[in-house]
Amino acid sequence: MRRANAQLQSDRRTEILDAAERCFARAGFHQTSMQEICAEAGMSPGNLYRYFPSKEALIAGISERNRAEAAVSFSQVTGAPDFFQGLAGLARHHLVDRSDAEVGLCAEIMSESRRNPEVARLYQEIEVEIKGRIADMLRVAAERGEIRADLDIDAAASVLMVLGDGMSWRRAVETGFDAERVLPMVLKMVRCLLAKPGECNSKTGESA
Amino acid sequence: MRRANAQLQSDRRTEILDAAERCFARAGFHQTSMQEICAEAGMSPGNLYRYFPSKEALIAGISERNRAEAAVSFSQVTGAPDFFQGLAGLARHHLVDRSDAEVGLCAEIMSESRRNPEVARLYQEIEVEIKGRIADMLRVAAERGEIRADLDIDAAASVLMVLGDGMSWRRAVETGFDAERVLPMVLKMVRCLLAKPGECNSKTGESA
Repeated sequence: MRRANAQLQSDRRTEILDAAERCFARAGFHQTSMQEICAEAGMSPGNLYRYFPSKEALIAGISERNRAEAAVSFSQVTGAPDFFQGLAGLARHHLVDRSDAEVGLCAEIMSESRRNPEVARLYQEIEVEIKGRIADMLRVAAERGEIRADLDIDAAASVLMVLGDGMSWRRAVETGFDAERVLPMVLKMVRCLLAKPGECNSKTGESA
Repeated sequence: MRRANAQLQSDRRTEILDAAERCFARAGFHQTSMQEICAEAGMSPGNLYRYFPSKEALIAGISERNRAEAAVSFSQVTGAPDFFQGLAGLARHHLVDRSDAEVGLCAEIMSESRRNPEVARLYQEIEVEIKGRIADMLRVAAERGEIRADLDIDAAASVLMVLGDGMSWRRAVETGFDAERVLPMVLKMVRCLLAKPGECNSKTGESA
């Protein structure tokens, strides 16, 4: 019974975070009211506030969920039989398959982090963790001899974040941006950056 | 006398646009009032409104100026003795040398274009022109045999815009992001994407 209750609470949190994501992505963090999120989630304010007392608490909940998802994604690359195939899968998942709502939400959180100190603090925490996970993934691949040994791991992690942000923002602002068409070129560039000398042009699981 | 007047008017416009850029970058488009821009420009509202009657008119003026600057930048690459050196110079100018205020303004206009139809229209106009100029630059280089002949020009132009946005957003949101350190890796990737087969690892004017 207690177990069923915990599951119910977890489902409710998921539903509320999904509703908040849709609202923030659609109308922006500032322009969205708690009332609108209640309506989107089909829930009374009294009920919703028991789970998340403020918009910042919702952003924190969304961030925590993204962080958990990212941890799984990066561990899948490290567990893949071929590093570049694993990376291509991660890139496709993160840069092409994500919904427009998720991409819009990401743009919204980045914009808001430039103005709102509480959002900035949450965003920076996530950023440091994501960059750390990318660096760990590259370090393991370098130790296994899957990528070049002399790589500047920290700078390379930054470059991967540059590409992730750039793809997200193109999707968020450019009408008709074709992520699918651009992805093979991005993967080709990343392989050139990371691969051992002479292995730049091998197959990557995505044709380039 | 008429010539001196025209020069004075042009100087005034430049001063006002500079002041507006600083205000928008600092506080955001929404949070900035025309009064604050007047104060920053050291000008009375009556005087400033004669030049720019609204915040949208200021964004249009800033966009027009960026468009003119971009035209010069891209023609310099096409006029450079070596394409990749010219491109490295453009990348350094646009991605590293720009002031934090300019980078913040760019982030602000992108964010605002997701909400404000008037800003979206201006932004899309500029975007289409910039992408067209990048494509022209690549087309000339391909015709001259400076880059690979079989390049998907349109997709490659998108990739360069992805990199430009990604670098700008990293600068705008990541405390301590080191654009200088990341630039050589970005240039190396771009060379791999654009260079003719076998010319991926030549010198680029920036060490990689």
